[in-house]
Amino acid sequence: MEKIKRNERLAVMTQILTESPNRIFTLSHFCDLFSTAKSTVSEDVAILQDTLQRFHRGQLETVTGAAGGVRYRPIGMGESARPFIESICERLREPDRVLPGGYLYFSDLLSTPELVQGMGNLIAGQYYDARADFVLTMETKGIPAALMTAQALRVPLVIARRATKVYEGSAVNISYVSGRGAIETMSLSRRAVKEGQRALIVDDFTRGGGTARGMAALMQEFNVTVAGVCFVLSLEHPKNPPLPGTKSLMLLSDLQAGEPLSVRPADWIE
Amino acid sequence: MEKIKRNERLAVMTQILTESPNRIFTLSHFCDLFSTAKSTVSEDVAILQDTLQRFHRGQLETVTGAAGGVRYRPIGMGESARPFIESICERLREPDRVLPGGYLYFSDLLSTPELVQGMGNLIAGQYYDARADFVLTMETKGIPAALMTAQALRVPLVIARRATKVYEGSAVNISYVSGRGAIETMSLSRRAVKEGQRALIVDDFTRGGGTARGMAALMQEFNVTVAGVCFVLSLEHPKNPPLPGTKSLMLLSDLQAGEPLSVRPADWIE
Repeated sequence: MEKIKRNERLAVMTQILTESPNRIFTLSHFCDLFSTAKSTVSEDVAILQDTLQRFHRGQLETVTGAAGGVRYRPIGMGESARPFIESICERLREPDRVLPGGYLYFSDLLSTPELVQGMGNLIAGQYYDARADFVLTMETKGIPAALMTAQALRVPLVIARRATKVYEGSAVNISYVSGRGAIETMSLSRRAVKEGQRALIVDDFTRGGGTARGMAALMQEFNVTVAGVCFVLSLEHPKNPPLPGTKSLMLLSDLQAGEPLSVRPADWIE
Repeated sequence: MEKIKRNERLAVMTQILTESPNRIFTLSHFCDLFSTAKSTVSEDVAILQDTLQRFHRGQLETVTGAAGGVRYRPIGMGESARPFIESICERLREPDRVLPGGYLYFSDLLSTPELVQGMGNLIAGQYYDARADFVLTMETKGIPAALMTAQALRVPLVIARRATKVYEGSAVNISYVSGRGAIETMSLSRRAVKEGQRALIVDDFTRGGGTARGMAALMQEFNVTVAGVCFVLSLEHPKNPPLPGTKSLMLLSDLQAGEPLSVRPADWIE
């Protein structure tokens, strides 16, 4: 095979690493791919680390030990978390989004890939040390943002359902009180999670935290620890205290039909 | 600013282009970012094109004209579409996946990010010329694969619901006959799509094509053209003919409780 130049190696390594965030690649993986010495690949990695950091295109980390290697995490992407979230707030303030009954039309933004990818990267960035085994969400609107979070963390997504589905096999069902005070059901397949695992709860919106408390209760049934809770949007002053440690990308202070939405990025967004 | 070397430029360009598949970046975008002449960026693009092609890491295409530039498409990734889909078939053949009543437990694979990302890239690769304005799916299990398809095509995802939701605003509802012969409802917010658009339908599984025909009927209500239909898994010999041009990643020839699943990659998967 023809010798592969450094700039070719760097382009291919960047593509491979950024396509599989949080996956550890051994240096040998790249030695084999490029038929190159380990010292050369080490130099490549050092260049890549500096370059990605300099241009705010995420972090490349070297992991030592037996299972060591190099992994990419989309942290600090584009140095633009706050303007990015502010641009979503801006779109939420568009007229006609507040529906009769004090509901908010938000589905379009929650299923636009580049927006949910940014949301997922930001949420994941807060939980790399939480050692979550999976991301848990409740169907339906939060699925895209939760999936992108799971992708950035390289863990599976688990979707709780509103009712038992025959194609999910035997399931555990619980009842919970929704943010609007109604009694709702939540169902999760017995095979979806394993005892002793850790769950990161991600959902689109919380009013009173009822669904999140439902998901936490569901995890208790499976003997699963809740490693974190993060919403795309939540009320700035909820009536009930949220689960401890709950985060949110955006905070909503008021929701009145006919008035512009009062929404802002959470303080932790830099 | 310190001069940026070619290998640094190539790494950053690769990250930016592959993070936003199918988005056209002007050469000026990179000239500004790197404070570099257009001729230099053109050379960078040519190197990147050759390199990604040589390592089967997707296609970099130059687009001419007023809105011209360069775009990345994850086509032909890793030269491994068939082994990748075969590995999913292998997992579908695991014991205990066939549930009572002839249902298949498939939810775990359908919400594993690296699997649905590969599925989405493969599906998108078939429809870059179909000029879809959005990807349409029906809640819930198909959402992750449909989202990844939408991301690769850089179009929004639109999710049809099983019932009208207050937070979706006014909606169009239709009734349809499911693959199992039951009458079901499908609902879509009026604001989700615009007249004259083109829809790519993506869903997880079809037995008799009932849900797909429902989605096509729903699109007719909105005066939207169906630009394509693709499933993750479908019956090899369905009782009813599928919608014209329907594709599938995998074909299921039989589903009998207690017997290993007879499933294989579709013929078009290379």
